[in-house]
Amino acid sequence: MNKILILGAGRSATALINYLLDEASNNGWYVTVADSNLQAAQDKVGSHPAGRAIWLNVTNVDDRKAAIAKADVVISLLPPFLHTMVAEDCLILSKHLLTASYVSQGFYSKADEVREKALIFMGELGLDPGLDHMSAMERINEIRADGGKITAFRSFTGGLVAPESDDNPWHYKISWNPRNVVLAGQGTAQYLKGGKYKFVPYQRLFTQAVPIDIQGMGAYEVYPNRDSLLYRNSYGLDDIPQLIRGTIRHTGYCAAWNALIVIGYTNADFPIMHSEDLTYHQLTEAFMGNNNKEATLKESVANLVGTPVNSDIMQKLEWLGIFSRKKINLVDATPAKILEELLLEKWALKPKDKDMVIMQHEFEYTKSGKKYLLTSTLVMEGDDSANTAMAKLVGLPLGITAKMVMAGKLTTPGVNIPVLPEVYTLVLRELEKMGIKFKDTIVEI
Amino acid sequence: MNKILILGAGRSATALINYLLDEASNNGWYVTVADSNLQAAQDKVGSHPAGRAIWLNVTNVDDRKAAIAKADVVISLLPPFLHTMVAEDCLILSKHLLTASYVSQGFYSKADEVREKALIFMGELGLDPGLDHMSAMERINEIRADGGKITAFRSFTGGLVAPESDDNPWHYKISWNPRNVVLAGQGTAQYLKGGKYKFVPYQRLFTQAVPIDIQGMGAYEVYPNRDSLLYRNSYGLDDIPQLIRGTIRHTGYCAAWNALIVIGYTNADFPIMHSEDLTYHQLTEAFMGNNNKEATLKESVANLVGTPVNSDIMQKLEWLGIFSRKKINLVDATPAKILEELLLEKWALKPKDKDMVIMQHEFEYTKSGKKYLLTSTLVMEGDDSANTAMAKLVGLPLGITAKMVMAGKLTTPGVNIPVLPEVYTLVLRELEKMGIKFKDTIVEI
Repeated sequence: MNKILILGAGRSATALINYLLDEASNNGWYVTVADSNLQAAQDKVGSHPAGRAIWLNVTNVDDRKAAIAKADVVISLLPPFLHTMVAEDCLILSKHLLTASYVSQGFYSKADEVREKALIFMGELGLDPGLDHMSAMERINEIRADGGKITAFRSFTGGLVAPESDDNPWHYKISWNPRNVVLAGQGTAQYLKGGKYKFVPYQRLFTQAVPIDIQGMGAYEVYPNRDSLLYRNSYGLDDIPQLIRGTIRHTGYCAAWNALIVIGYTNADFPIMHSEDLTYHQLTEAFMGNNNKEATLKESVANLVGTPVNSDIMQKLEWLGIFSRKKINLVDATPAKILEELLLEKWALKPKDKDMVIMQHEFEYTKSGKKYLLTSTLVMEGDDSANTAMAKLVGLPLGITAKMVMAGKLTTPGVNIPVLPEVYTLVLRELEKMGIKFKDTIVEI
Repeated sequence: MNKILILGAGRSATALINYLLDEASNNGWYVTVADSNLQAAQDKVGSHPAGRAIWLNVTNVDDRKAAIAKADVVISLLPPFLHTMVAEDCLILSKHLLTASYVSQGFYSKADEVREKALIFMGELGLDPGLDHMSAMERINEIRADGGKITAFRSFTGGLVAPESDDNPWHYKISWNPRNVVLAGQGTAQYLKGGKYKFVPYQRLFTQAVPIDIQGMGAYEVYPNRDSLLYRNSYGLDDIPQLIRGTIRHTGYCAAWNALIVIGYTNADFPIMHSEDLTYHQLTEAFMGNNNKEATLKESVANLVGTPVNSDIMQKLEWLGIFSRKKINLVDATPAKILEELLLEKWALKPKDKDMVIMQHEFEYTKSGKKYLLTSTLVMEGDDSANTAMAKLVGLPLGITAKMVMAGKLTTPGVNIPVLPEVYTLVLRELEKMGIKFKDTIVEI
């Protein structure tokens, strides 16, 4: 095996491509980067002798199959709905397939065929999902091997802005998909507490954020994810009484974000006809119901949200621009799209800004009659807005896994996520060599 | 033309089928009722000499085309997503098509072809949408013909339970699709007030119900629909400063329904794994977050909803059974599905129960320097749970329109909704002969 095909050369692909080009030089491999935007692919590959950029419209069956046929390992960074076609081709053409996306039921349904062909199809190889599985499973298996019984597992991740680049009242900038920032939490969050299911509908999700102490960083807050229970079985935690996954935000973020939900700004379900004729002020006003006609718009919003007119929440809203008399520059857009565009501008990383990723796992376990808390924390800052911690932590686990598959070091065929020791051990040790290391602390509780 | 095909023989088809069988006898027509449940079709047709029941799997292309080929006018009572196939066939086979469903953009896109073939494709021929368009447009055109200028149009409809059959604290029973009762209002309501757009997101919709006086009935409450602005253009009201469509409920219903939303019971977005192992009490408890452990479940819910523990709202919730220790009899169901099943039982019409439909339009207009309010109200009760006002008011406008098409009395081809005078005049006069008549009152304001 000496040929890797990377499908997709978007902004988040840089760290992955750079890593694999370097490895390709060392190992005599070739890396082909395919994108419908040839320039983007060329920019990423540069003049690297082991790399090649090609133009590919992935929905063209023949072109796609031809590209896949030439590869040994395929890495798909395409939007998730395109993975299915790629997976079908990889199965027919007997190629290994790696992605950073959630593994769907459709993917799992192919597991037998994949195994029979001795292929490795692995998803969730990015940061979250990805590095979270790897780092959590290593500790879960260590605690068990040491005779411990896990009674609680809490796991939190946040893509944030580094303190030195934090210059806005939300203490947040966007280092990943802005649409997902706007739609975060839509659905119902599920988790386990005291042996019982807990469900939190969207309309209450951001009102119930809880404080968390991040090792070495101090106080943040977290809200629960939709998928806390999804991995109970994969992690071997079927009987655990407490299991929660959540998202980390700066203290105060959730209460202010909830104000945007209450107003109606996160709705993606209807286009506002002629939104281009409205100002942000007018749109915000349109969300106010049978309000007091004497009140100013800010007073109405403060009253609706249930906060003083000069509160932190209101200052965040005002800074964002929802009271501004500027025209909305989008035709027939949904409120969510209008908010996304506003956030893209206000929460943009400036060229020299550094992002910051925080991941913290908390395991409670009993051993020899005593109870312990293991806290395992990764804090990583990016170099600048082009080389973010987010892109590295999404791309490197994927790249390292690809290297291991190329080198024949992974031997478990089938459809999997990286909860297997043979995967996470290699990836975590390689990341540590690059300085990407969790800090673990154990205290008796 | 002497052959009518009715696709679908569900519960709501009775009034339509009976009406058309009678008309068929008088006019020498034949009515074919097709359903995948042959028994249901046979029960509806009985031994009527002008009727015939056939078994039809509508997704079987050949069978469907064969049935349509034999008809002159096709009436589709199928779920909306199946109308597209039927419409394609009707277009190819040159058959008229009538439905009670919303006319989709896909339907409208065929308008030129339909017109060229001199066919009549008409949707929204039921109650709401349907009779609302007809009765509103007649009055809008009358006011204009009389020199009036309309400054506000408010239109409200409710499918309710008749006072003499009202024996539960919600003052509500189900006379239509129970799933739509549960999902009502999900999305964002839009309306016009004071010349400005107003948007109300779902999480606030049922907190802002406003009182309404229904002529002859007294006090009810209304909440705005999603579609208030949809007909601004069709009704010729592009410049109107106030336009709202809404749903009528008994006073107090909306505040209690909002409690179900706040708790999380209306979410259709995630299945609760092993819901069959939970009681309603346990499910309600699972929706309570970081609550006070000393509080009872009822106290926690009351606190979450912001209402005293013995309030009307809490009494409605308790009556519904969300605190009951009974097991949920549904496997891996969404909260919305669990609520739907509960409502189907608790809000069922008993055999002799009568439902009640209320529709009220309110038009404000100026004429010769004076300002008037025209209130136009229809209140109709059903005979019993099998012969509901709802089924009659959905089926009869459709049946009468079919009769008019058969008799060649409708001459405007194309894709339309019943805002055309040639349609609504005939339908409304025929309904009046059956005693279904709006009461109009005009006062100077």
